[in-house]
Amino acid sequence: MEIRWKVWLQEEDCKVFGRGPVSMLKWVDELGSINKAAVQMGMSYSKAMRLIANIETHMGFSVVERQVGGVRGGGSRLTSEARDLIDRFEAMETEIRAFVEKCGGTYFR
Amino acid sequence: MEIRWKVWLQEEDCKVFGRGPVSMLKWVDELGSINKAAVQMGMSYSKAMRLIANIETHMGFSVVERQVGGVRGGGSRLTSEARDLIDRFEAMETEIRAFVEKCGGTYFR
Repeated sequence: MEIRWKVWLQEEDCKVFGRGPVSMLKWVDELGSINKAAVQMGMSYSKAMRLIANIETHMGFSVVERQVGGVRGGGSRLTSEARDLIDRFEAMETEIRAFVEKCGGTYFR
Repeated sequence: MEIRWKVWLQEEDCKVFGRGPVSMLKWVDELGSINKAAVQMGMSYSKAMRLIANIETHMGFSVVERQVGGVRGGGSRLTSEARDLIDRFEAMETEIRAFVEKCGGTYFR
């Protein structure tokens, strides 16, 4: 038997940020494209855009910025606020993971 | 922004125990009837029975026992193993809740 858990940020009834958005933003970072990131996540472009807009609305800052032209011919990249958000979320996850493993083992070996 | 979380017990791809089953078993305990508990949970009797069978299969002990006759005319009640399972799960949740509140506040005030 395994102890599974998840954590996410929520505002009222709206899930704002969690594992899914982290993966999505990391794909945008790696591929430089929301469209390519959406393909990797198996979701439509419009769903990816809604997910990003939802984060931006609730967090109050942009997470993706469009680059125009340049050597790589434009594309999308993460803002520094998005990187900071991902870092904080993952640091929190790491602490919770360690705690749940320790604590879970006490109650369910 | 709130930090939300959940924890559950899982075996391979199968969710075995968590908040939903805890509520379900507590209703069985209070109402003495799987059928009445299912109504409270807004689920069908057959779904409630599957949920209980699933816990019993994976945990390896009975969680509900049928009482025949008696002053209250029979009904279902929890086994001591079920009470112990609920107690351990909720004690684990209480520890995780306290940790996530403390830890979450560090990363997302």
